[in-house]
This record gives sequence, C-alpha cells and structure tokens, in this order.
Amino acid sequence: MTKRITSIKEMQQLTSELKAQGKTIGFVPTMGALHDGHITLLKQAQQENDIAVASVFVNPLQFGPNEDYADYPRQIDEDEALLTKHAIDYLFYPREEEMYPSLPITLHVGEMAEVLEGAKRPGHFDGVVTVVNKLFNIVQPDRAYFGKKDAQQLAIIEAMVEAFNHNIQITGVDIVREADGLAKSSRNVYLTDSERQEATALYRSLQEAKNAFDNGERNAEQLESIVKSYLAAHTTGSIDEVAVYAYPSLQPVDTIGSQVFISIAVKYSKARLIDNIILKDGHND
Amino acid sequence: MTKRITSIKEMQQLTSELKAQGKTIGFVPTMGALHDGHITLLKQAQQENDIAVASVFVNPLQFGPNEDYADYPRQIDEDEALLTKHAIDYLFYPREEEMYPSLPITLHVGEMAEVLEGAKRPGHFDGVVTVVNKLFNIVQPDRAYFGKKDAQQLAIIEAMVEAFNHNIQITGVDIVREADGLAKSSRNVYLTDSERQEATALYRSLQEAKNAFDNGERNAEQLESIVKSYLAAHTTGSIDEVAVYAYPSLQPVDTIGSQVFISIAVKYSKARLIDNIILKDGHND
Repeated sequence: MTKRITSIKEMQQLTSELKAQGKTIGFVPTMGALHDGHITLLKQAQQENDIAVASVFVNPLQFGPNEDYADYPRQIDEDEALLTKHAIDYLFYPREEEMYPSLPITLHVGEMAEVLEGAKRPGHFDGVVTVVNKLFNIVQPDRAYFGKKDAQQLAIIEAMVEAFNHNIQITGVDIVREADGLAKSSRNVYLTDSERQEATALYRSLQEAKNAFDNGERNAEQLESIVKSYLAAHTTGSIDEVAVYAYPSLQPVDTIGSQVFISIAVKYSKARLIDNIILKDGHND
Repeated sequence: MTKRITSIKEMQQLTSELKAQGKTIGFVPTMGALHDGHITLLKQAQQENDIAVASVFVNPLQFGPNEDYADYPRQIDEDEALLTKHAIDYLFYPREEEMYPSLPITLHVGEMAEVLEGAKRPGHFDGVVTVVNKLFNIVQPDRAYFGKKDAQQLAIIEAMVEAFNHNIQITGVDIVREADGLAKSSRNVYLTDSERQEATALYRSLQEAKNAFDNGERNAEQLESIVKSYLAAHTTGSIDEVAVYAYPSLQPVDTIGSQVFISIAVKYSKARLIDNIILKDGHND
C-alpha cells in the first residue's frame, strides 16, 4: 500500500528519518496522470534505492496563460492505485497553497531555456526549476529519475543540480513508447482516433533521420529536412518545431561533431506532442 | 586543529558521512576576516550541534561594480588560526572557479530587496541568496547562524529557507559590539582613528530612539528624526540611510504596531557602516 503524504513537514520528517536509518531514496517527480513512462522511471528508482517516492503536483508556475493548466488531467486516486499496484513506497501530493504561499525569490533559467520548448513556452522552465528545487529539498533523494522525452528539461535539471550543488544523482531514462512507437504521454488522451493513428509519424520521422545519420549524414539542416518531409507526408498535425541541438549544452549545431538530439513538436487539434532522438557520433550502437 | 576543506565534493562527502553517523551540523557562512562577531556565531553553532563548520568565501556576486570586492580583507591563514584556537571542526574554503563555473540559473529576490541595503546595492541580495543556497546544499547543516547586524539579510535568508524548503533552522544572533558600542564588522578596519571614535554615534543614536520608544513614541518618522539629529550632531560621517521597517516582512511602517527595526547606514571616508535595533511593541524587556 503506497502511503500518501500531503504535508511538506511530514515528508521532510520522513526523509530525515529514512536518511538517519541509512536508507537511500529514489525519487520521480510527476504531474500525475501516471502512465507506463512514469512507472518505468519508478521501477528503476525502486531497483536502485531502498525507498521509492513519487510526487504528484500539477505545478501552476510551469504553465503559460494560454496553456492547459486547468484542463491538465488530474486523477490522484487512480494514480495512487497504480503506485500501490507497483509497490511504490510513498506518494507525495502537496497542496498548492503550501507549495507557493508566496514567491519572495524567483528562479530564472538563462540561455538553456531560450531554445526549443523554452522558446515556445516563456517561463516554463523557470517554473520547472522552481518546483523541482523545492521538491529536491523536501524529498532529499539520493537519486532522481527523469524521462529523456523531455530532453531539454533533463539537461536543465542536470545544470541546476550542478549549479545549486544538490547532492543528488540525476538519471535520464529512455523514452517509453507504445507498441507502434508513439512516445507515452499524459497528453496522448487528447488525441482523436485518427490523430492517434497518424501520431506514430513522429517516431518514424526520427527513425528516418537516424537511418540517414547512420549512413553518414552529418549536416543538421539535412537531417531536419528529412524529418520535416516525412511529417508533412504522413500526418495532418502541424509541425511546430524540428531542430538539432547539441546535448546536453543545448547549443545550436550546423555539422554534427559530438552528441546531439533532434527534437520535434507537432500540434494536433487538442494536443501538442513532443518527441526526440539522441544521436551519438563515433558509435555504432 | 580546524580542518580546511577546499573541494565541494570533499565537503559534500564529509557532510553525508556525518549525517549517516547521526551527527548534527551547525554552520556559519562568512566572507572571512573573522572577528568576535563571527566567533560568537560559531560558539553558538558549536554549543548547539555536534559539529561546527565555518565557510570563508568572498562572494563576487554580492558586490556591485563600484564596491570593495578587490579590497575586501582576505586573511585565510589568520582566519584558520582563529578557528583552531576556538576548536571549530571544519573550515570550508572553496575556490571561485569551482563555485561559479557558470550561472545557468539566476536567483532574484523580489520586493524584500527593494528597500534599505538592497535599494542601495542593486543585485546584492541576489548574490547573497545564490551563494547561501549553494553553501546550504554543500554543507547540509541542521542549523545555520547569522548576525542580526545584517537584519535585512537575515530576513531574506529566512524567506529563502521557507520558499526553497531547506530543512535548516536559521538562528539570528544578537549584534556583537565593541566595549564602546560600535558593532563589530570586518569593515571597521577601514576607519581612521578619529572616525573610529565618532562611529560610536551609530549605536548611541539607536539608543536615543529606543529611549523615546520606551517612553511611548510610536511614530516612525519621529523615531527616524531622533536618530538623524543625533548622528548629525555627533559624527562627521554622512547619513546614508535611517529607516524604520517591519521585521521580518521588511514592509514600510508609519505607526509602530508590531515588531520593527530601525536601520542606519553612515558613510565614512573609506567605509560604510551599518547598524540597527529591533523594537518590540507590547514588551518591556
């Protein structure tokens, strides 16, 4: 039975006790509406630590004024049942009033937030680091797990951990996909049936680019245009972003020399989906 | 013998080990040039915790472009000797390059920094919270100690601890003074002999205001003018600030209803000195 904790103080007391007992804590922060992607992160947290903690908090600070904060799926009882099914030890589910009684100090992500999702969603990553910094201090995990689907988020959180000297190991976990390749996401439920079928084009477009890369293509613009052409031909969704950036520096790239990722975003009627692939030069794996 | 640690990683490993042994850590962050004020903080840290840690780091981020960063007194060997004399366990003395390899995320203090020292020194408190947040994560103390001389700093650090959910108890320690009342400060060495004699006027002006308060004066402007008149009559230093603010909210005050402090700053030829007094309504102590 997963134990639900809503009070920040109670969570902090618990983590202090666990640490005093020499127990390690693995942590997966989420916004709820848990799916197999989250469970994959939690299973790894469980495997590598004595105690696994998930948090569910739909963080208002990371939504823009025209985004889906009000409509974001909330299903805490289903989430808790799923965590219990997978024997996760604790669910931290704080209330907004206790998380943000006020904001006397604000956090601002610099140029790492000026590209990709950050450029499309001003303030989004400021909100992400604000809440993750708080959650890290409350839960005090030894290890925290994030999906590589939000690759920019992962890079920014790694930068925060280094800049703020959090004593936490961050692990990026491979994207979990449906059988047909669509990346799992809480927002997939917004897709119509026909959009859901077409949406596999995101993954397949990235595979096309990977094939070209494996065959020697090193020009970033060429790889972008392979993805764009594939998407244009195979889905009615509108292309919001196709871009190649160095990973994890998030610097723009012309010719691929070291690790990069291709990031894509496609807009459907009620959902904006993202996906990406990491390409490593000098490896054949 | 105080042990000097310069590596962030070594400090973090040490604090993890101490915590795993159930030891409590008391922490005093400083910019060095240690004097009796710091030692008073450290003695309290020592008394209330198993282990006492001092840090010495002249934090470039909290100095403005026309301030005394280059000239700020640096005397690490004397500092270490003083810490050894007082049996302080650890001195954390990090290098600037390791503290700030880059600043991917910046911290900004809102309206609490828009008055008093913060108004005179734009960016100062952003620099303070940036370094103290890092030091808290590196040293992971149970308790941290700050002098009430920097009352605005103390209030902002308390606000940060609450906003960031640091699991740390902050203790404000009474101002330590010379026999003649001058608040101890690393900057007192900048005073000429005659300025040093006159500088007792800061403390005495605050005592004048306290006498008036004890006799029933509750008008903030009246109290300010008592301080200003006293300073004008008793020192050649120029009055930079005399102001009454609520404590710890740092909101402006007209009529004193709850706890306030009178903050003063006086400029001498090479030093700007600050002092303050906290006045509590409804108490006779």
